Amino acid sequence: MIHPEYQKLERVYERLIRRPNAPAPYTNGVFTRWRHPVLTAKHIPPFWKYDVKLESNPYCMERLGVNAVFNSGAIKLGGKYYLCARVEGSDRKSFFAIAESRRPTEGFRFWSRPVVLPDSEPDETNVYDMRLTKHQDGWIYGLFCSESKDRGSPDLSAAVASAGIVRTKDLKTWERLPNLITEQSPQQRNVLLFPRFVDGQYAFFTRPMDGFIETGSGGGIGFGVCADITRAVVSEERITSARRYHTVTEAKNGAGAVPIRTSRGWVHIAHGVRSTAAGLRYVIYAFATDLNEPWRVIAEPGGYMIAPEGGERIGDVSNVLFTNGAIEDIDGSVYIYYASSDTRLHVASTTVDRLADYVFSTPPDALRSAACVRQRARLIETNLAFLGRRE
Amino acid sequence: MIHPEYQKLERVYERLIRRPNAPAPYTNGVFTRWRHPVLTAKHIPPFWKYDVKLESNPYCMERLGVNAVFNSGAIKLGGKYYLCARVEGSDRKSFFAIAESRRPTEGFRFWSRPVVLPDSEPDETNVYDMRLTKHQDGWIYGLFCSESKDRGSPDLSAAVASAGIVRTKDLKTWERLPNLITEQSPQQRNVLLFPRFVDGQYAFFTRPMDGFIETGSGGGIGFGVCADITRAVVSEERITSARRYHTVTEAKNGAGAVPIRTSRGWVHIAHGVRSTAAGLRYVIYAFATDLNEPWRVIAEPGGYMIAPEGGERIGDVSNVLFTNGAIEDIDGSVYIYYASSDTRLHVASTTVDRLADYVFSTPPDALRSAACVRQRARLIETNLAFLGRRE
Repeated sequence: MIHPEYQKLERVYERLIRRPNAPAPYTNGVFTRWRHPVLTAKHIPPFWKYDVKLESNPYCMERLGVNAVFNSGAIKLGGKYYLCARVEGSDRKSFFAIAESRRPTEGFRFWSRPVVLPDSEPDETNVYDMRLTKHQDGWIYGLFCSESKDRGSPDLSAAVASAGIVRTKDLKTWERLPNLITEQSPQQRNVLLFPRFVDGQYAFFTRPMDGFIETGSGGGIGFGVCADITRAVVSEERITSARRYHTVTEAKNGAGAVPIRTSRGWVHIAHGVRSTAAGLRYVIYAFATDLNEPWRVIAEPGGYMIAPEGGERIGDVSNVLFTNGAIEDIDGSVYIYYASSDTRLHVASTTVDRLADYVFSTPPDALRSAACVRQRARLIETNLAFLGRRE
Repeated sequence: MIHPEYQKLERVYERLIRRPNAPAPYTNGVFTRWRHPVLTAKHIPPFWKYDVKLESNPYCMERLGVNAVFNSGAIKLGGKYYLCARVEGSDRKSFFAIAESRRPTEGFRFWSRPVVLPDSEPDETNVYDMRLTKHQDGWIYGLFCSESKDRGSPDLSAAVASAGIVRTKDLKTWERLPNLITEQSPQQRNVLLFPRFVDGQYAFFTRPMDGFIETGSGGGIGFGVCADITRAVVSEERITSARRYHTVTEAKNGAGAVPIRTSRGWVHIAHGVRSTAAGLRYVIYAFATDLNEPWRVIAEPGGYMIAPEGGERIGDVSNVLFTNGAIEDIDGSVYIYYASSDTRLHVASTTVDRLADYVFSTPPDALRSAACVRQRARLIETNLAFLGRRE
């Protein structure tokens, strides 16, 4: 028989899934946080964790725990909102699972079964952070990090990362293609497929890496193309949004959500990283690239767009905000699904128009304290004059 | 005269010591957290910190602060529960102190005086993390980390660690024995004395170390024996629970509480460590060894048993859960005393039967994402069929 305790767990779960969400207090006009996370470890169906039978699980204990639900690809199909979440077991292995809702900010419910990717890479130990791209060619592509133990290193923890590629029409049946090869970069993470052909070729935003956690010197978000995505080889990567000293991208940066087309350019919502005495700090920033040359940065606001706040600051890997998915809705709304501290997934809402205004009207990073003060002093003086305050 | 402010401090302290505790909301059936920590820096008697005299301490200021109370050995004697806590002064030096209660989950009160260990190791700078073992030979042994400055290193912070050994009958009078020598490992921490003779010899769980904070490649929890504990030399260590890539023990692992005997094997409650972009993350995990060959792992659940949650995540060393003591009670209850973030000590309760079921019925780590998804898919399909849900 079904364990009587298990039935209580189902009721608690249903209450959580049906919990309404609401906008959080005003932040800064660029975006609106929503009060509750949209996905957490508690959103995992109890039958993914418990053996439900009284006979074989007399104490009603979890048999396969789930530690966290976070970095999610996002897509709208046929009027519904879908998240392809990174689900991390208590064993540290991640996998993907689709959660669906009729509303972009609440009600996300995982399908009955997680995604079972074709297991075509025998060395692959872990997979995570899928970006979902509805491509011009008719497929939905998922690009994700495929991580393996570095067998060449004596360090037990050393890993190598490359970009896995799958495609689907319905988020149910997934065809796996060979991992991306970038001839200039032995490793890749945070790779994103651009939704349109560029000069008739598939185009990728990449992250040239010279190490796993530390990316060393140089670099930034790369861009490269290939003719055949079923055997994807990128021969050359050029840098789009660069890493820069004493900016939010100082330690590393990487692509986030699939770029959003505006009348003035493609808006990219990415992440930037700096080092602190307490480890790395990840924030979300934005920039724009040219409509016809999507690798060419034409606007890049100074600083971050969203940084960790309140409870977001704390988690399995604290001081991290990260996004790999956003949905542009038919009314011009944009929902940015961002994870906090590698633990849970939130949503922030904005609009295409606000994003464009943010990206094109926010001053660029002036790069030096003295220049930044002059930049701010100009804003203040203009405002004081306009406000009629002689101070 | 006694400072009038001091008398207020005593009343606040008494209220804290008498505060009742209660189980926290349901977690996962494996264990129950209790709402309040059982020991914190505030549980230190005020007269350990203040000079109580108005004349010599007119401002009623602390003269010797206490920063934290955490990793504690645990033992039940004569119907009472005893914790041998790591007390850390605001000067970073730790020492041991016994707290006593009639109940396992609340009411712990430090004895009037801390433990004064025989000072037989002139280079020893710090001592911490005592495991208390009621041994078959009639003694209660305390094994702890004895740490000294590494005089051979130019790095001011470099330390060397070895296992100190004391024994007592009453937790009051302590006889110090020479530190453990492990011929294969220049350093040791997290050493635990097994409660029974193994082939007539004293048996230790060790942690072969090749560095201090970083343990490098290989390794795991070791096991070794010696004939004479008054001059303890372990010639050979073999690995029991191993470090493994992309598991909770990837960066390092170590013994925790004294193993608990069940009908099917010894249950070990240990700790595992992984690296993150924000530093190390310590979780508590469990495994079982053979009743007759206590070094031989016969079951090891995948993933962690207890991970930091809520306020546990934050402290002097954030993202750390650690245990070095548990008490098996006469009714089959088990109280696991675990510290969070090197700051405070909590209790989680479970039973011998639940622990055995957890250790022997939880699937092992499948080690690769693809295999872990298959493992979970089997659980889900079995559950869906049993629940009669055709989805």
